[in-house]
Amino acid sequence: MDRPIGVFDSGVGGLTVLRALAHELPDEDLLYLGDTARVPYGTRSPETVIKYAQRVAAHMWSSGIKALVVACNTATAHALPTLQASGEALGIPVVGVVEPGVEAATKATVTGRVAVAGTEGTIRSRRYQDALERRGLEPVGVACPLFVSLAEEGWTDGEVPRLVAEAYLGGLREGPDTLILGCTHYPLLTSAIASVLPDVRLVDSASATAQVVARELEARGLIAESPGGTTRFLVTDNLDRFVRVGERFLGQRPEHVELVDLPAPHGPFAGTPS
Amino acid sequence: MDRPIGVFDSGVGGLTVLRALAHELPDEDLLYLGDTARVPYGTRSPETVIKYAQRVAAHMWSSGIKALVVACNTATAHALPTLQASGEALGIPVVGVVEPGVEAATKATVTGRVAVAGTEGTIRSRRYQDALERRGLEPVGVACPLFVSLAEEGWTDGEVPRLVAEAYLGGLREGPDTLILGCTHYPLLTSAIASVLPDVRLVDSASATAQVVARELEARGLIAESPGGTTRFLVTDNLDRFVRVGERFLGQRPEHVELVDLPAPHGPFAGTPS
Repeated sequence: MDRPIGVFDSGVGGLTVLRALAHELPDEDLLYLGDTARVPYGTRSPETVIKYAQRVAAHMWSSGIKALVVACNTATAHALPTLQASGEALGIPVVGVVEPGVEAATKATVTGRVAVAGTEGTIRSRRYQDALERRGLEPVGVACPLFVSLAEEGWTDGEVPRLVAEAYLGGLREGPDTLILGCTHYPLLTSAIASVLPDVRLVDSASATAQVVARELEARGLIAESPGGTTRFLVTDNLDRFVRVGERFLGQRPEHVELVDLPAPHGPFAGTPS
Repeated sequence: MDRPIGVFDSGVGGLTVLRALAHELPDEDLLYLGDTARVPYGTRSPETVIKYAQRVAAHMWSSGIKALVVACNTATAHALPTLQASGEALGIPVVGVVEPGVEAATKATVTGRVAVAGTEGTIRSRRYQDALERRGLEPVGVACPLFVSLAEEGWTDGEVPRLVAEAYLGGLREGPDTLILGCTHYPLLTSAIASVLPDVRLVDSASATAQVVARELEARGLIAESPGGTTRFLVTDNLDRFVRVGERFLGQRPEHVELVDLPAPHGPFAGTPS
């Protein structure tokens, strides 16, 4: 199967997941789509996130992907069940970032008290908290909206990110032993977060997600038959900014980037499957 | 003429302009639209901002407005000429926030050196800088992207906003005598900005814009014939968040808020007029 794996995010954040995938599955071709015309998803309603995610998934499906990775916590939190139902009907696996992160945190915690930091939408959805509770853990959710702008502006070290991290997370010092970075932007702020919570294990779902994707491809016989390893990028707006800001998330300058216009959705992935 | 004045912004920021309009024209009915399904405009390309602005303007036109106020600096910077050409054809005035701010700064400056702080899109457009140069002034533009999140999160006082303001604006201390707050969010950060630039005059275009609107309505015989003074709000997503965050911008809780879905644009304001 030499079709690419589709990886989608609202913008640049999912590049941290793409990076982990390229590391875990170096022979696979990857197709990334950043919905930069509609970013951020973190402050939108569940209905709107579902609509946007369907539009992106429909476009990626029409590009011939063999699997879809929802590399955005907010999109996973709101839209994964809908996208998975469509994926099921079309015969392609759809993997989100929440379950892999929860699995990793479950392994990491000793006390069973696990915090999750995320966007307003992700925390309000309670997707992480519910998944942790189902495993018998004690979750606490903290929305950290300013982290996204800090990461995108490259403001990841020094006094400002440390003060912001202290304001959001200082209250967790006497609590959980594990913190899930429940937004793909937050790994860039690891040093600021770790300075506030030096004794807390930080769980980044990127590599956990990449492992789940590898497992799924194996199980379904979808592993690349010949070595590929190419990566292409699609964005829905502002290509220049994607390249400039994306470099910090990907660890290298994104190349082969194309601007696409997503029409109103139709066909597979477009509506809620019955 | 008892039709409402339409006021549009990408989200909550334009509420600072709405507030000034309600103060300047207390008898007018106002219809506000916050495009919260597509906010923020500040990091988008000019083409996308124009497309989004046309969609909003077309919807407001179909709601029967008698004038349109583009209460968003980024939308004004990119889309005002297009919207004004449509407005001309339809016989309604379209007023943006850039020219009124520039006029007010021209009156305020003594040395002729004027800075403007705004979103990435506004500063890159050079709309303010060019308008200031046309008046023989010496402009300097500074993009302050983090200010929007700080204002929306209510993080307007204390060490974090002061440090962020210092990082963006500290370099202006020996320069301009006047600073245009070229984004409707920034007035909420006045105290942090003033603490960094105590000797610089801060110009907020909200009241200047309201005065220009009043002048236009007078000139065209469009002033309300009977006292109205009602305000209605439309948002394209996440009504709850609009009410919650909007309260800080409006100075009171927005009431009579409705969720609207904007279809792909057609009819007046929808395309670039010939």
